[in-house]
Amino acid sequence: MTETGHPQLSPQRLFHRLDQLAKIGTTADGGVRRLALSEEDKSARDLVVAWMQELAMEVQVDRIGNIIGIRAGTQDLAPVMTGSHIDTVANGGNLDGNLGVVAGLEIVESLNQASIETSRPLAVGVFTNEEGARFQPDMMGSLVYAGGMDLETALVATDDEGLVLGEELARIGYAGAIEPGSITPHAFVELHIEQGPVLERENITIGAVENLQGISWTEITISGQSNHAGTTPMHLRNDAGYCAAAITTFVHDLARDSGAGQVGTVGVLELQPNIINVVPGKARLTVDLRNADNNQLTHAESALQDFLGTLSESEGVDIETRQLVRFDPVIFDNSIAELIENNAARLNHSCRRMTSGAGHDAQMMSRICPAAMVFIPSINGVSHNPAEATDKEDIIAGANVLMHTLLDLLAT
Amino acid sequence: MTETGHPQLSPQRLFHRLDQLAKIGTTADGGVRRLALSEEDKSARDLVVAWMQELAMEVQVDRIGNIIGIRAGTQDLAPVMTGSHIDTVANGGNLDGNLGVVAGLEIVESLNQASIETSRPLAVGVFTNEEGARFQPDMMGSLVYAGGMDLETALVATDDEGLVLGEELARIGYAGAIEPGSITPHAFVELHIEQGPVLERENITIGAVENLQGISWTEITISGQSNHAGTTPMHLRNDAGYCAAAITTFVHDLARDSGAGQVGTVGVLELQPNIINVVPGKARLTVDLRNADNNQLTHAESALQDFLGTLSESEGVDIETRQLVRFDPVIFDNSIAELIENNAARLNHSCRRMTSGAGHDAQMMSRICPAAMVFIPSINGVSHNPAEATDKEDIIAGANVLMHTLLDLLAT
Repeated sequence: MTETGHPQLSPQRLFHRLDQLAKIGTTADGGVRRLALSEEDKSARDLVVAWMQELAMEVQVDRIGNIIGIRAGTQDLAPVMTGSHIDTVANGGNLDGNLGVVAGLEIVESLNQASIETSRPLAVGVFTNEEGARFQPDMMGSLVYAGGMDLETALVATDDEGLVLGEELARIGYAGAIEPGSITPHAFVELHIEQGPVLERENITIGAVENLQGISWTEITISGQSNHAGTTPMHLRNDAGYCAAAITTFVHDLARDSGAGQVGTVGVLELQPNIINVVPGKARLTVDLRNADNNQLTHAESALQDFLGTLSESEGVDIETRQLVRFDPVIFDNSIAELIENNAARLNHSCRRMTSGAGHDAQMMSRICPAAMVFIPSINGVSHNPAEATDKEDIIAGANVLMHTLLDLLAT
Repeated sequence: MTETGHPQLSPQRLFHRLDQLAKIGTTADGGVRRLALSEEDKSARDLVVAWMQELAMEVQVDRIGNIIGIRAGTQDLAPVMTGSHIDTVANGGNLDGNLGVVAGLEIVESLNQASIETSRPLAVGVFTNEEGARFQPDMMGSLVYAGGMDLETALVATDDEGLVLGEELARIGYAGAIEPGSITPHAFVELHIEQGPVLERENITIGAVENLQGISWTEITISGQSNHAGTTPMHLRNDAGYCAAAITTFVHDLARDSGAGQVGTVGVLELQPNIINVVPGKARLTVDLRNADNNQLTHAESALQDFLGTLSESEGVDIETRQLVRFDPVIFDNSIAELIENNAARLNHSCRRMTSGAGHDAQMMSRICPAAMVFIPSINGVSHNPAEATDKEDIIAGANVLMHTLLDLLAT
């Protein structure tokens, strides 16, 4: 790296770009609705591409619509990459994804202004359909980029109205010609809001994300016997609702008692016939188990299965399970996590290692290159919601830690 | 009682009348839909009135539409009354209510055939709107008859379409002129299917119903915090869904551990937002507690309240409760229950004292005269359902026990 000056982020420029993006798809309640490959997504993409061109970056669009902006290096080496996504959920905020892209561009502009040349190129990726709110699966662009999903399969995904992803990409002008993943980065680092309460509660500014939870989703259907709530003694019941409740408290206690790494949630619970004076004959619930340690996750899954067997026997109900999702945990690159910690310390920001509880493009990129993430606090832990917010100082702190981590990686 | 012969029930006539009634409002799946004051109710009433007239009974219709058929006695004494109702739930069976009316008529016909005269009159009551499926409250006709509800209030009750009960009564020709309750019976005995599994499970033919459970219905609304299921550690949650489940298992365990008399049911449980990967922020559930002992019922209610207080504190959620229904238990007349037991023994039917878990017209009549009930088994405990059924021998056994109990009371 030939350093001809000290790069200095401009908070004003960074927030101006965030504001410009937030205006595309603004909802009445101040949120952002920018579903993948919608008109709003097209406008936001156009804006980001224009910014990249203003910054003299080379812009590549691949066949799944990922946009890769490249700030040239002085040598023909694999680029260091940062980035995230600019699609949102149906009524989201203005930071999730957008911050990671805007911070990348601000870093490029800062390097440009300080006339800093790097031997490796610096790339900023904007990945297609990270949220999965319109087309499934989520994190699709980075998944295809990393070779985890067949391009042709992704292109025929349809939304609820039957519109085809590939056709929507072409309609908005982002069906590129380049094969996804044609550039294998030297490293990938993503800045993202935490979307959880941990940093805020612990009053810590920077999360050095070292891993990402594995996810196990199970749908459980219980068939018992619908009976009169007055005339059926307790010992003659096969109460599907009670069983659903017993599973819910079991999952809660299992996660609580397994230590900090395990979470467990029953998010969906529905009874039939759902009438005040009728013992529920059927129940359906979902169990979401997550752990960054695959052994512990497997252990929780099997403890749940054991409990279901015992419950089915003792309550005389039939219990069926269906696995909806099972992702192994992701372990990020430890040396990048260390760089993040070191830069946070050097910049006088409090920092802790942490686990991501949500999915991110970085987890897909970690399949093909060393990767890690920088987290900053979410106020009240809120995300996927118009109330999503982060203190401005925290945003600048995160962008600075990202910049110095990228500079470190560019020098390797 | 001047006995000139031995009365003998005719199973053939009894089942023929049940079948004739079941044809009015038959549903595609073999059930019966005969909502109070509907066209079907009118047709069934017309049929019952015709039967009463064929049996030389005096037919009275009161202002709430109750039909009272009277077989004259030889003296001017208060009648012994039996009866039930002929309205059904939206998709019910052919025994609930109907059997009690048909058995009364069959007993009258048997007495007529045997030329038996009794000093007291024998009355058969057909009470309006017992089910409460169209107009609330349920057991309305007998409640008004017993003076527990103001007639004018009952007449302005409306159904879901805004139709007024008094106008519907007039439309189908059953707005009578007599004041409800103008006859105070000497005693009231009702034959009814159990609508529960106890007699069948214990292989007993006759239930001598000595009391009826008190009912406590509470709606509970829990407000916690909706959070991301991956990013929110267990100790930072305010999980309304977990709390709803904990209440459900508490109610279940409380009832199970309180002894045979207590039942407890959570029939309704709904989560918000009810999404697989979101910790529920809100939950609504209902608790149905029943006990024939009012002290025990009150104790269960207060144990629930204590638990809600503890849970609200430990989980950091707001819990609101609303009492929807609170009926004290009903204690039936012990001497009539004894007569039922004695007659069952004399007719070689197994018999047990029992508690009714459901509401019945007899509970309202017990406000104004000695009352009790005869239960017979429900196959699989099923009722309020097209599958509602009872073995024919059990039906005849119940009708015989009813007849002899009525004869005993007619002689007092």
